[in-house]
Amino acid sequence: MIGVAVIGASGYAGAEIVRLLASHKEVEIRYLGANTKKGLAFGDLFPCYGPLGAMVFGENDPDIYLADTDVVFLALPHGLSVPHVLAVLKAGKKVIDLGADFRFRDVDVYESWYKVQHEARAISEKAVYGLPELYREQIRGEQLIANPGCYPTGATLALYPLVKAGLIDLDSIIFDSKSGISGAGRGLKEGSLYCESAESLKAYGVGTHRHTPEIEQNLTEAAGEKVTLSFTPHLVPMSRGILTTAYARLNQKGLKADIGAVFDEAYGDEYFVQVLPEGSFPQTKWVQGTNFAALGYKVDGRTGRVVVSTAIDNLGKGAAGQGIQNMNLLFGFEENEGLRQMPLFP
Amino acid sequence: MIGVAVIGASGYAGAEIVRLLASHKEVEIRYLGANTKKGLAFGDLFPCYGPLGAMVFGENDPDIYLADTDVVFLALPHGLSVPHVLAVLKAGKKVIDLGADFRFRDVDVYESWYKVQHEARAISEKAVYGLPELYREQIRGEQLIANPGCYPTGATLALYPLVKAGLIDLDSIIFDSKSGISGAGRGLKEGSLYCESAESLKAYGVGTHRHTPEIEQNLTEAAGEKVTLSFTPHLVPMSRGILTTAYARLNQKGLKADIGAVFDEAYGDEYFVQVLPEGSFPQTKWVQGTNFAALGYKVDGRTGRVVVSTAIDNLGKGAAGQGIQNMNLLFGFEENEGLRQMPLFP
Amino acid sequence: MIGVAVIGASGYAGAEIVRLLASHKEVEIRYLGANTKKGLAFGDLFPCYGPLGAMVFGENDPDIYLADTDVVFLALPHGLSVPHVLAVLKAGKKVIDLGADFRFRDVDVYESWYKVQHEARAISEKAVYGLPELYREQIRGEQLIANPGCYPTGATLALYPLVKAGLIDLDSIIFDSKSGISGAGRGLKEGSLYCESAESLKAYGVGTHRHTPEIEQNLTEAAGEKVTLSFTPHLVPMSRGILTTAYARLNQKGLKADIGAVFDEAYGDEYFVQVLPEGSFPQTKWVQGTNFAALGYKVDGRTGRVVVSTAIDNLGKGAAGQGIQNMNLLFGFEENEGLRQMPLFP
Amino acid sequence: MIGVAVIGASGYAGAEIVRLLASHKEVEIRYLGANTKKGLAFGDLFPCYGPLGAMVFGENDPDIYLADTDVVFLALPHGLSVPHVLAVLKAGKKVIDLGADFRFRDVDVYESWYKVQHEARAISEKAVYGLPELYREQIRGEQLIANPGCYPTGATLALYPLVKAGLIDLDSIIFDSKSGISGAGRGLKEGSLYCESAESLKAYGVGTHRHTPEIEQNLTEAAGEKVTLSFTPHLVPMSRGILTTAYARLNQKGLKADIGAVFDEAYGDEYFVQVLPEGSFPQTKWVQGTNFAALGYKVDGRTGRVVVSTAIDNLGKGAAGQGIQNMNLLFGFEENEGLRQMPLFP
Repeated sequence: MIGVAVIGASGYAGAEIVRLLASHKEVEIRYLGANTKKGLAFGDLFPCYGPLGAMVFGENDPDIYLADTDVVFLALPHGLSVPHVLAVLKAGKKVIDLGADFRFRDVDVYESWYKVQHEARAISEKAVYGLPELYREQIRGEQLIANPGCYPTGATLALYPLVKAGLIDLDSIIFDSKSGISGAGRGLKEGSLYCESAESLKAYGVGTHRHTPEIEQNLTEAAGEKVTLSFTPHLVPMSRGILTTAYARLNQKGLKADIGAVFDEAYGDEYFVQVLPEGSFPQTKWVQGTNFAALGYKVDGRTGRVVVSTAIDNLGKGAAGQGIQNMNLLFGFEENEGLRQMPLFP
Repeated sequence: MIGVAVIGASGYAGAEIVRLLASHKEVEIRYLGANTKKGLAFGDLFPCYGPLGAMVFGENDPDIYLADTDVVFLALPHGLSVPHVLAVLKAGKKVIDLGADFRFRDVDVYESWYKVQHEARAISEKAVYGLPELYREQIRGEQLIANPGCYPTGATLALYPLVKAGLIDLDSIIFDSKSGISGAGRGLKEGSLYCESAESLKAYGVGTHRHTPEIEQNLTEAAGEKVTLSFTPHLVPMSRGILTTAYARLNQKGLKADIGAVFDEAYGDEYFVQVLPEGSFPQTKWVQGTNFAALGYKVDGRTGRVVVSTAIDNLGKGAAGQGIQNMNLLFGFEENEGLRQMPLFP
Repeated sequence: MIGVAVIGASGYAGAEIVRLLASHKEVEIRYLGANTKKGLAFGDLFPCYGPLGAMVFGENDPDIYLADTDVVFLALPHGLSVPHVLAVLKAGKKVIDLGADFRFRDVDVYESWYKVQHEARAISEKAVYGLPELYREQIRGEQLIANPGCYPTGATLALYPLVKAGLIDLDSIIFDSKSGISGAGRGLKEGSLYCESAESLKAYGVGTHRHTPEIEQNLTEAAGEKVTLSFTPHLVPMSRGILTTAYARLNQKGLKADIGAVFDEAYGDEYFVQVLPEGSFPQTKWVQGTNFAALGYKVDGRTGRVVVSTAIDNLGKGAAGQGIQNMNLLFGFEENEGLRQMPLFP
Repeated sequence: MIGVAVIGASGYAGAEIVRLLASHKEVEIRYLGANTKKGLAFGDLFPCYGPLGAMVFGENDPDIYLADTDVVFLALPHGLSVPHVLAVLKAGKKVIDLGADFRFRDVDVYESWYKVQHEARAISEKAVYGLPELYREQIRGEQLIANPGCYPTGATLALYPLVKAGLIDLDSIIFDSKSGISGAGRGLKEGSLYCESAESLKAYGVGTHRHTPEIEQNLTEAAGEKVTLSFTPHLVPMSRGILTTAYARLNQKGLKADIGAVFDEAYGDEYFVQVLPEGSFPQTKWVQGTNFAALGYKVDGRTGRVVVSTAIDNLGKGAAGQGIQNMNLLFGFEENEGLRQMPLFP
């Protein structure tokens, strides 16, 4: 049994880590941090939670939470992770950061898109980008995992294999993503109110969303050359789920390729990625509450494009689930331990 | 490992049994029956389902499904259970019927409210009403469990202890229940369409709903005398969840009683029933996807009434979850085995 | 053409007044007050609004808004209306207050339930309670209208005629109401977030909600003696709509009465109240965006109770629509002028 | 006063025509046709409908409905319009067909995508495509209007001006559209059930949706050369609204152009099209229940693309509203008569 601390445990992603770890055989939750809820019990916020409900939130203070902990999950707004990461590394423990601070190989890109100065540039090099389907071997045995963003997870899974195989025109890539409202977090914003968002739909952050350079980093790595792409997120009246529809022009090689075979080779052995038959497309409810990603695709001969659509749960594969998958790799547990719950439907 | 068959496995309640059993340590699902889906794989309907997705639906034929099975879940429309139950009993196996056919001690009441003739009156006496918090000891070791209806579960839990303790005027009981739309099943009805039910709310079956006599049976048993009550179900724009708000006038004894203590005595040791402090009331999302019931209450001195509100997941404690809880009792497993998933929130 | 000012015009009820007045033939909106939005245009908040979008929000200052105004709508939180009402009355204009400050004949009741001191007790006597179906004649020609609360409108319409006719036991009255989330206003509260309220349902304010004494005042007036009743509001995942299900025991006279005839006599000539045939029950979507109320009822011989259910739009008949109906009475316009829009469905 | 017949009046689009015409000053609804509801009153389906509720549905028989009618709205599934159109034209009346049968200049395209044989090719030439913002002058005085599809309306408005001005690479056009569920009609399909579609999202008809050639026809007309494009519709858990996000690469001329000025020139005088400032994007709720279209755009220098997003109500500007706008042009009424209702919000 390893000991786990969850910092930021009262937000949606933090609480989802708690929910999933509750059924994990190899870990024990030893600390729940939430500055604003200090002194409250987890069960005060989530009343039907069995024994875990009795745990009391403490401060987000490494001096306290590291005492009895082997691995720390950070579910904090970006910009707040650095002191925690420094403390964890110094203590020789492991940390999985759900924030953006350590996701970028080029810290300048982070600073430019996030409009902040990074306060631990040197440490940034030690971080591994925690998308197991791409970087499984690099993750094992590391100390610091930068858990991918929710949109970048769905977008990267959609096109990485095709880019890697050199099948698409790199200047033609467009991601149109649609997210449930939990992606905006539990903070009080007018746009997150039921009455503002129900029965409605909108694009936001067009051309400026901070997940854009993260997706570009991933596909650039796949391509071996700089990729610039369009990414448009939308807000959809549902709590969970991201559907990303990706568009790319197939090049000559791509037009001749067996696209299905490329996806099968990439994901055929992956427990958490389900490739559907060509022309079948996933709905987000199929993965609700899970770490699964479902992928549909269609080669459109009329336009020479391939359309790929991925469905994930933004709090699952897009955040907490993937974080636990990373933890399992870090500690040599079965990769799907704690993640075998089937999707809630309906 | 015991073998399980789920008959009616493509509907919402049937599929929920499959979902929950997927994480049950003591059972193996050996048969999925669904006449209309015969030949399809479970994964054709629920694509992200891990290994279980490969199971193929077969006919609802006892000669086939009993071969390798220790217990059968029947998730069929009322009136269809009898031949299955007869076959299971004859084979010396166990059966948990989610339908209404065997819930009534007085078969005449069933026939009168359901407008059908019961085709196995003699067998009806062997059935145990499967509400474990009330009838735990009677359930153990039986063969035929009549799983309670969704509304009766929430309603009965709300007032049973108070009625049993003789604290309320028996002619004053009113249940106002509100259910998510999965309660109407997966059938194609205009009223179940998104556009008809979203952003809307209505009462239905006022004074005539078939769950009325089932609740009356339970409270009559608690009271030791005939209870007649009002029950009004409503349809709410959400997929899962039932909230039942119960109203009753406290009698002289009730006005002096410590209502909270009565609930604590009834449910304090129950894993699946969470009694909230007086004046706190549950929301259905707190129990989403689980077998929990959350109960809030308030003694209103102005009116002399007690108001009790219970939240359950109609597919969980209201159907599949309770069915598995019953199975655990039948086979001597831990009562919450397979039911330790925490609620999905948000 | 009369001139109208709407104070609190950026909230849900205030904006609904604007929306409805936009198609009213006899009025011109001359002032939109919203302290927090001062300087913004209405079209900045509601971009597709035709010519009205160009109007700029001003302060909630009577010295400014009374200049060119015949009638003022106050859509402010309770407790803020008094200075506006004093200024309007002094100027000899008319005012329709959507808040609670002037709804109570007995100001002590207001102070006791709202936990505030009323700052204009003397004025309170001049207010008329603006439920036109009950007090049409008293409303005409008055200066100060206290617009009813949303829940009290639906609840009062449900049982007023039966109480008035002396058909029910006055100690048996229970209102179980369910409201869309716009009833909580546009303020930033965690409970109003999409992710907290979607796919969920809860009771709140049990035994303590401030609309209780308002309903009691109305039914007391109908009965000619003090009525004490139970009222439980619930929050439902939809933006608009209130469904109130009322329960009452019929007395000897009531058991013999023709309940449908009583409703027909009360509402048969009312444009805005639709009585359904016995056993038919309304859904809130039938009145979405309108000033209609739909009423269903059922006499339940088994229990001796009558169950009545009313559906209104909480922002329509429950607030803005009724306010405009009152204005039409004040100025002698056709009572349904500006209110002839049919319900949005789906 | 002209007389109107609505054929297919019990479906969502047909009933929306009735709803809007109810407040139209120049018309009288004289016939409601709905084969499956014959003999029922409109008020049986939509109980709160004022005087219109008393109208009784008749058969969809031109011999009956043309007697007293100047213009007919056809809200029928595609393929059923031809006999009605022939009868109306023969009688010298006018017809607005909400179906697809007469939208295509090249009937072969219709037959190829809709997999049917067109039974009135000769008549097809007489049809005018009823998108008033593009073809206002051609519409006036005609007899047969082919009302545009819902997706094509939003998509065409998004890019028509830019294509017409020669600013974009014609092989780079992608439309990613998201529709509310009323777009699927009132028919009983499993995918339209609340429990299947709520809290979920999916793409469908990828590369094969029948609205693709209709959008291509419109943009081909704008370009003066053949345009082939990608169009992906998605189903979103809301009743009404379509958001279309369009992507196109700007050519050299386009990169230098003032895109905002192009939109202003195209739509600056249009009552029903609202162009937002660059970088502001619309939400569908802003146009709920109306004939408005809201358009946002962003020139993305990084990628050389323009992103344009339009929000319409699929039953408003996407169907019934636009139909009435066309009727107003046909008869010389004010173009926004009957269409001045402001959006329902929230």
